[in-house]
Amino acid sequence: MTATVTGATLRRRVEPDTAARMARSVRAATGVGPRTEEVADWLAGHAAGNRFRVERIPFAGLDGRSFAADTGNLVHRSGRFFSIEGIHVTHPQGPFPEWQQPIIDQPEVGILGILVKEFDGIPHFLLQAKMEPGNPNLLQLLPTVQATRSNYSKVHRGADVKYLEYFLNPGTGSVLADVLQSEHGSWFLRKVNRNMLVEVQGDVPVAENFCWLTLGQIGELLRRDNVVNMDARTVLSCVPAGHDEDHALHPDGELRSWITGERCRHDVRVRRLPLAEVADWKRGEWSVDHVPERYFRVMAVSVEAGSREVGSWTQPLIEPLGTGVTSFVTRRFDGVPHVLAHARVEGGFADTVELAPTVQHTPGNYQHLADRPPFLDYVLGADPGRIRYEAVHSEEGGRFYHAQSRYLIVEADEAGAPAQPPPGYCWVTPGQLSSLVRHSRYVNVQARSLLACLNTASVTL
Amino acid sequence: MTATVTGATLRRRVEPDTAARMARSVRAATGVGPRTEEVADWLAGHAAGNRFRVERIPFAGLDGRSFAADTGNLVHRSGRFFSIEGIHVTHPQGPFPEWQQPIIDQPEVGILGILVKEFDGIPHFLLQAKMEPGNPNLLQLLPTVQATRSNYSKVHRGADVKYLEYFLNPGTGSVLADVLQSEHGSWFLRKVNRNMLVEVQGDVPVAENFCWLTLGQIGELLRRDNVVNMDARTVLSCVPAGHDEDHALHPDGELRSWITGERCRHDVRVRRLPLAEVADWKRGEWSVDHVPERYFRVMAVSVEAGSREVGSWTQPLIEPLGTGVTSFVTRRFDGVPHVLAHARVEGGFADTVELAPTVQHTPGNYQHLADRPPFLDYVLGADPGRIRYEAVHSEEGGRFYHAQSRYLIVEADEAGAPAQPPPGYCWVTPGQLSSLVRHSRYVNVQARSLLACLNTASVTL
Repeated sequence: MTATVTGATLRRRVEPDTAARMARSVRAATGVGPRTEEVADWLAGHAAGNRFRVERIPFAGLDGRSFAADTGNLVHRSGRFFSIEGIHVTHPQGPFPEWQQPIIDQPEVGILGILVKEFDGIPHFLLQAKMEPGNPNLLQLLPTVQATRSNYSKVHRGADVKYLEYFLNPGTGSVLADVLQSEHGSWFLRKVNRNMLVEVQGDVPVAENFCWLTLGQIGELLRRDNVVNMDARTVLSCVPAGHDEDHALHPDGELRSWITGERCRHDVRVRRLPLAEVADWKRGEWSVDHVPERYFRVMAVSVEAGSREVGSWTQPLIEPLGTGVTSFVTRRFDGVPHVLAHARVEGGFADTVELAPTVQHTPGNYQHLADRPPFLDYVLGADPGRIRYEAVHSEEGGRFYHAQSRYLIVEADEAGAPAQPPPGYCWVTPGQLSSLVRHSRYVNVQARSLLACLNTASVTL
Repeated sequence: MTATVTGATLRRRVEPDTAARMARSVRAATGVGPRTEEVADWLAGHAAGNRFRVERIPFAGLDGRSFAADTGNLVHRSGRFFSIEGIHVTHPQGPFPEWQQPIIDQPEVGILGILVKEFDGIPHFLLQAKMEPGNPNLLQLLPTVQATRSNYSKVHRGADVKYLEYFLNPGTGSVLADVLQSEHGSWFLRKVNRNMLVEVQGDVPVAENFCWLTLGQIGELLRRDNVVNMDARTVLSCVPAGHDEDHALHPDGELRSWITGERCRHDVRVRRLPLAEVADWKRGEWSVDHVPERYFRVMAVSVEAGSREVGSWTQPLIEPLGTGVTSFVTRRFDGVPHVLAHARVEGGFADTVELAPTVQHTPGNYQHLADRPPFLDYVLGADPGRIRYEAVHSEEGGRFYHAQSRYLIVEADEAGAPAQPPPGYCWVTPGQLSSLVRHSRYVNVQARSLLACLNTASVTL
């Protein structure tokens, strides 16, 4: 037998009271920070009378960025930050067996981190009000830290990133979540960010524009349009919430097997392409567009702001055409709530498919096809009494311009969404989503936004 | 509230008696199939008097494969199967900040599946004796099904793959494991195979060269050199064994956070390269070699065999130089066994690092460097009484030629392997490895081989 060492202290592999602590935060309608109404009003007022200015500019007006002579890729002169390149995708099993498109290439991993601290036994979450140029209302609530590596390694010589040290050395706190999560697979090539929840014990000075909120308060704010930004939502999807159903329509192992099967069923090949060679897309002075106009365009903006690390700058953004519809359909089976997940292929996913909402629809993408996406008509035509959750949220305002989507959770019965769904769909419980989101590349960013609403009881199924 | 539907039957998310059933199979020294000695002798005898012939040939002797005129890639005329291409890797944090190398590109996902069936309450596993050209002893025990998609979709017009239907439609049985696992990241570009354990209830006719074995029998066979092949080992690493420690040096969340941190700490960029442009490698008539000779070579063989789907063929193989050393160092902390995992970078990994054994050393790779890999000298110099497990195993004989490694599990104390190991290393329990191996890309193929030894009680820590 190996000698037993008593010097090192063992710990429980899973901390048993975390879920209960999170539940206390969900139930707390007020906390040590501002009241929920104050936050909402303050954001709205701030956005109205701000000194931020975002203007569409021609690509020629970009400072430090241009289309490379050989590839036509839209790159920064430093070779860092992000660039816009092209991909060619083949997917024989999909509605589009083959296509080419521009895509953002940003190989560096950013940090999206929320600091957590108990006050009077109730966990609070530190969010900040901040401007992002692509947000329709500019100012939203962001995570404590939202920083690319270029940000915090000072490539663009800005101010220090506040609270960064808690996330660069998470050992100083207790880590509630720390996982690489994918970003939008239709717009980003294999991009992941580090999603972190770090709980601290000691004093934390609250900087200007930062505030401590309970999960209950954040859940309330998630019911409003464009208040909690995408990066905050994805981190909140990782809250170790207590969706602990013992039973489900599909055991966990069967669910993982179904996901593996879906990954194998789709034979997706992605090849990089110089932007200049991307077929069906046309570069103009102000934008790169699909011909005919469809999906999204690449455009550029100039930004003037007071509260960012850098006061003014220019940058390209992806501008989707029209407001999307992003919805989980939900049912109870034997009293246990389930949502209908879709194993969705996106060209930028590293693992072929991820679990997406039942409907994730961008207008214009399918209009020219004979078949409408499954469940889209059900969701759009649902009786208002069946809409359990509805709010308009925007995607990351640092990369996407006015990329808004109507997020919904819509109740169904057997007629609307059968217990045996069509291929590519599977009923899962919130607890199953929660256990998958501990690992990379299972749950896509749109589904994570809706999971954040469940974690904060913005909606209770 | 959502209406409750009673039509659909819920099931437990985790089947509670699976681990106990696996434990019964581990304790079973005999089963309904051949005795362990018979299997070993039969394999040894068969290999001695076989009609298999594997001969090294020049590349010009390859049938259907040649170096493409433009890229120099070694490709099949069908555009399918696998090809040998090149990559350029940058890794500023590593011992080699930058390198180029040939690599196997095989984007299709193969199936590695073992059929499981209870006899008298004891789960048995269906293995087959089969020849692979790269195996030093040719004949080893393989999974029930070991097939590339080209195999089973008949690109090379061979015979049917036996038992394939159980894995193509896993719904006919109960799925014990089904997960995409990475292959060798030093030799394969982002390759994964589908590792499956499917349990069936009904009668299963046992074809020639197939036999039912208990986990206890397989554990006994794993103590012998070159009997259980790599593909069987990786599937066996996924057995839902009952390593259920409640306590560990690092809670599960902290372990996942450490892995995420290691993935972020290493900034690895991989770019495809035509084989003709790979620096420091020279193409000859019989092989592609590093200059000076190091790491591995690409070579070709002709094969004649009776028991394969195709009677004779030619193919390229990767031939590493020399026998490797692959070892976990193990300690007990407060009575709980741990192994020391290494967060290892390999150029072909999709997620930068995976958990590897403490030592995974190929001779020649580091000889020209000043620093020896950590723990290598400890493992090589360990007192024989501390060697808890030792056997020579080979890697996949369908792609690698005589790729042998001495697999070891070596006991240590604080002097040999401190409780606070150097950066890049972390103590984990077998149960933690088991829970990670349910998901893709956490545990590399070499560590999975050693986990298979733990799952089958080939060694008890």
